[in-house]
Amino acid sequence: MKMASKTVKAAAKPAPALRAIRGGKPPAAAATADDAPVIALKLPPGKLSPAMTAYFKKCQDKLGFVPNVLVAYAFDSAKLEAFVAMYNDLMLGESGLSKLEREMIAVAVSSQNRCYYCLTAHGAAVRQYSGNPLLGEQMVMNYRAARLSKRQRAMLDFAVKLTAEPANVEEADRERLRRAGFSERDIWDIGAVAGFFNMSNRIAAATDMRPNVVYHGQAR
Amino acid sequence: MKMASKTVKAAAKPAPALRAIRGGKPPAAAATADDAPVIALKLPPGKLSPAMTAYFKKCQDKLGFVPNVLVAYAFDSAKLEAFVAMYNDLMLGESGLSKLEREMIAVAVSSQNRCYYCLTAHGAAVRQYSGNPLLGEQMVMNYRAARLSKRQRAMLDFAVKLTAEPANVEEADRERLRRAGFSERDIWDIGAVAGFFNMSNRIAAATDMRPNVVYHGQAR
Amino acid sequence: MKMASKTVKAAAKPAPALRAIRGGKPPAAAATADDAPVIALKLPPGKLSPAMTAYFKKCQDKLGFVPNVLVAYAFDSAKLEAFVAMYNDLMLGESGLSKLEREMIAVAVSSQNRCYYCLTAHGAAVRQYSGNPLLGEQMVMNYRAARLSKRQRAMLDFAVKLTAEPANVEEADRERLRRAGFSERDIWDIGAVAGFFNMSNRIAAATDMRPNVVYHGQAR
Amino acid sequence: MKMASKTVKAAAKPAPALRAIRGGKPPAAAATADDAPVIALKLPPGKLSPAMTAYFKKCQDKLGFVPNVLVAYAFDSAKLEAFVAMYNDLMLGESGLSKLEREMIAVAVSSQNRCYYCLTAHGAAVRQYSGNPLLGEQMVMNYRAARLSKRQRAMLDFAVKLTAEPANVEEADRERLRRAGFSERDIWDIGAVAGFFNMSNRIAAATDMRPNVVYHGQAR
Amino acid sequence: MKMASKTVKAAAKPAPALRAIRGGKPPAAAATADDAPVIALKLPPGKLSPAMTAYFKKCQDKLGFVPNVLVAYAFDSAKLEAFVAMYNDLMLGESGLSKLEREMIAVAVSSQNRCYYCLTAHGAAVRQYSGNPLLGEQMVMNYRAARLSKRQRAMLDFAVKLTAEPANVEEADRERLRRAGFSERDIWDIGAVAGFFNMSNRIAAATDMRPNVVYHGQAR
Amino acid sequence: MKMASKTVKAAAKPAPALRAIRGGKPPAAAATADDAPVIALKLPPGKLSPAMTAYFKKCQDKLGFVPNVLVAYAFDSAKLEAFVAMYNDLMLGESGLSKLEREMIAVAVSSQNRCYYCLTAHGAAVRQYSGNPLLGEQMVMNYRAARLSKRQRAMLDFAVKLTAEPANVEEADRERLRRAGFSERDIWDIGAVAGFFNMSNRIAAATDMRPNVVYHGQAR
Repeated sequence: MKMASKTVKAAAKPAPALRAIRGGKPPAAAATADDAPVIALKLPPGKLSPAMTAYFKKCQDKLGFVPNVLVAYAFDSAKLEAFVAMYNDLMLGESGLSKLEREMIAVAVSSQNRCYYCLTAHGAAVRQYSGNPLLGEQMVMNYRAARLSKRQRAMLDFAVKLTAEPANVEEADRERLRRAGFSERDIWDIGAVAGFFNMSNRIAAATDMRPNVVYHGQAR
Repeated sequence: MKMASKTVKAAAKPAPALRAIRGGKPPAAAATADDAPVIALKLPPGKLSPAMTAYFKKCQDKLGFVPNVLVAYAFDSAKLEAFVAMYNDLMLGESGLSKLEREMIAVAVSSQNRCYYCLTAHGAAVRQYSGNPLLGEQMVMNYRAARLSKRQRAMLDFAVKLTAEPANVEEADRERLRRAGFSERDIWDIGAVAGFFNMSNRIAAATDMRPNVVYHGQAR
Repeated sequence: MKMASKTVKAAAKPAPALRAIRGGKPPAAAATADDAPVIALKLPPGKLSPAMTAYFKKCQDKLGFVPNVLVAYAFDSAKLEAFVAMYNDLMLGESGLSKLEREMIAVAVSSQNRCYYCLTAHGAAVRQYSGNPLLGEQMVMNYRAARLSKRQRAMLDFAVKLTAEPANVEEADRERLRRAGFSERDIWDIGAVAGFFNMSNRIAAATDMRPNVVYHGQAR
Repeated sequence: MKMASKTVKAAAKPAPALRAIRGGKPPAAAATADDAPVIALKLPPGKLSPAMTAYFKKCQDKLGFVPNVLVAYAFDSAKLEAFVAMYNDLMLGESGLSKLEREMIAVAVSSQNRCYYCLTAHGAAVRQYSGNPLLGEQMVMNYRAARLSKRQRAMLDFAVKLTAEPANVEEADRERLRRAGFSERDIWDIGAVAGFFNMSNRIAAATDMRPNVVYHGQAR
Repeated sequence: MKMASKTVKAAAKPAPALRAIRGGKPPAAAATADDAPVIALKLPPGKLSPAMTAYFKKCQDKLGFVPNVLVAYAFDSAKLEAFVAMYNDLMLGESGLSKLEREMIAVAVSSQNRCYYCLTAHGAAVRQYSGNPLLGEQMVMNYRAARLSKRQRAMLDFAVKLTAEPANVEEADRERLRRAGFSERDIWDIGAVAGFFNMSNRIAAATDMRPNVVYHGQAR
Repeated sequence: MKMASKTVKAAAKPAPALRAIRGGKPPAAAATADDAPVIALKLPPGKLSPAMTAYFKKCQDKLGFVPNVLVAYAFDSAKLEAFVAMYNDLMLGESGLSKLEREMIAVAVSSQNRCYYCLTAHGAAVRQYSGNPLLGEQMVMNYRAARLSKRQRAMLDFAVKLTAEPANVEEADRERLRRAGFSERDIWDIGAVAGFFNMSNRIAAATDMRPNVVYHGQAR
């Protein structure tokens, strides 16, 4: 569920106006866009808190669009706020994992779950952060095909095992991360980011959430 | 990740002191408890914000213990706060789903993922909210064995499919929920609760989180 | 398929009379019990042999109830006798495995197959034999979460692999058991108990067999 | 675990003597046979009861060999007797299912579990009972490829679902059998035979049980 | 998709005439054969090129029948020719793998996919090339049950992993083949034969392709 | 395994010279490209037939590069020729399926198998043929997320079921295609294209085949 990023240039194709994209008949102009409606549930728009109104404006200014996951959550300002707080802490806060690494986990997890929304939005983020379009594609298609450092391979192996068979994750798996150089706190963060996208993938699946079309062309 | 509940009576066995339960050698008194250490990662205790300090006190007063998931998150007050905000909104906030129904989703999802922490804590919650110990056991063991209303069966079928094969959830699945009487907002909530426990199950697996021993005997 | 056990105290809730629990309309008194009817097939009661009549009486005297699996089989005395003979030899006869260990296998296998009947009846047996309610819960939820000796972990790993992917069990798996201290005969017994519950789990699933309600509260 | 059958002619290749086939060094003559040793566990031969001695003699007289599963169990006469009693009741006793149908279930279940022993011994039985070598092959390879009556197809679909995903078997599955003409007792028998081979497949896998070589050429 | 083989003796039961076996009503004589019609699609017969006409005559002369896979492809001479060219190069051309080894791969892959056509035709080929009927049966039922050299076991492990989970095949898997004595070109050939049967298995499944009945009795 | 296409403009990044890309040390200029070496097997270059030499030249002229799958096969001209003949017949020959539809099958199958080579090369082909970059992405990520006609959805459902569980494909699956408007020959073609990519995906996985880097940027 990719959101604000400093490296994104103004998007070529502006996002459809907020009022148009939640469930109701979209206006003619938006009708051809794949991301309208944003979700398959018809939820009446909620009233955003001042903080969230400001956050949406910041997205629009910096990215040229409001990420559709935020639009989806906007039916309820409290839920939106809780989601944004957790997202920003996890993906943009301090961590022994680089922002690129956190995005790589996001995409490898979303590939395991085949989540169209998250693969699109966070695949773009991997391309942007890495400056390497191939790396983004490899995370989407099969992370095992990427030429990764041992550290990053261990990180993704853990995240994908946690996704595919959480009941089998044990101390030996954590030991493998420690041997690859990760700290105790890093292990928490790998688990927390992988966990977060296992949540987001399912909310996107439950609602048929559609990514902003603009992501597809970013950083190719 | 069961937390505060009004119906819980004072627990027989108080939780070990906070300083004892994260990674370091636990004091002698706690050594025999299954829930020490709370997680397999050695994370130095963080400084709780006043709000979180108050929240822990409230747990202790009302439940007789602080749920271990909170103790686990306490190494970082910002992460704890984000987790608590999302949890309380989802599980205790307003919704077309009863609190019991949300707990039933929590346990059915956690059973699919075989999450020891969440099955223990939320299995207890189902027993408490329903006053039916069998229902709690059935959610843990195989929700298909429970004598459920069509509504609740549809709800759990959706939540478990979303857990086991999110890539295959489609409009027909949402339609089944609508036909069972769920509103658009209810569908969001089912997806969001199922998603949340897909996250929590994986954080618990990544860290070998141990449930408070007291849960096992509750509401039998 | 837990049956006689010396440690069980008289059950609080006596089992419904035999004539009431097989398919036909149960009498009013039994109508609220989850274990009536015992199975979803309407099989006319058979005539028990003297040996089986005596065995049922012994169950009633020692346990306070006749385990529902026996009630289910009672439509045909020959089948019942064959089942009881095999069960008693395997679970109560001489073996290098303790009775607790055999019950642990029963529950870990039944958890893999998500069998409501066997998890309930044999989960109670693990709690009783071990005097450790947590161990019973862990066997039901995810045996990997239990703090086991190497011996018992190897035993359960073998039993669960045999359950989940029998075609992949090979000499290396037997060697792992030998290295964990098991004799040739012990390996037979582990395989035989795991095999037996793979049978019982499926007979329970085929018939929707319901466990005696009394099990749920035992040895908590 | 195919045993006595009236239609089998004297086998060309007699079974190796009992003392040679359990674990110890086999004599030179038996060394080239695939079925020596019968199992990968070195179990000292037990003392057979008079009934079991007579039964072995009967097998030798009627079939020309003692089926290896019996040889394997012969280390313990009580276990052998329990196995034989259950087997003979299930596979040769009275039932609404023909003996051929019970063997078809045996093979379809064993194919799902890829059990070399049972596919070999019971594949031969299907060929013998049906007089149709192709039917035996189809049960081994993929029962869906056989031209079956609706009744037999429903029977095998139930048995294979019970094998592959017992936790998902529910009333609708039983209803399908009833609509295909099966009685309540027939449903029990389908479940019991499928269950029995889920046990036998696993005992064979646990011990690397080898079928008598003679089966391979029977009724081709 | 077994075709010409020098070791096959004249078949007892000649294949039904070509015009009878593709979709249309078969003539009375063929009506009892399991291999009529050859596929479940009604495709009008195509005009064979001279090369393919000669090839069919050669099959009839040497084998006594035209393999049904060729009959199936005969609706389009260009497709038939491409299939035959690839097949003959792979299975009969020069290679570090013996013809028997290539057939073993064919059967082990087809067993993983449970392909009735290929298991029948290539199971016969393994029996013929090896002169060992048991080996053919073991490849069909579970290749892990065969007493194989380390080389052949490594070869089949690779082929079956490639079949079951191609996304997980990596350098370590190739290294295992090199350590077992395979050359770079051998690894290509193992991959190409395994790949080819993953194709053929699916064409057979898509069309319900039926093997010539004659295969079942060959080389028993 | 995407090859010649009329719509591709001259590639920005020319393919590394043929001699550089098979296993041996690549020259400095190619060292940074992800597609060198093309495969992980060190196979000495073969001598191309005149027809194949001409074909490679045609690729270079029309596409600006030789697709790496052809480079990989070039170690053996006969194998290359057989592959090209089958590929061109299937993907470019006459069919009731459009070329775009065949490419959609290629990508949906390759997504099921998570094949990096084929997803990259044929994902580009879907983008080119459709002029719709989103459609290419959706085929790669989860074809169920695309807004497809009933015809195309049925086509991909069949192709993906054939990939994931070929043993379960039956007449009802073919009937679904007929009801969606497909002819008998179309069904063959869907099966044959799906089969072909099940082969190609595995050859790519067995050899770690790397797609030409140029594909990634095409038709975005």
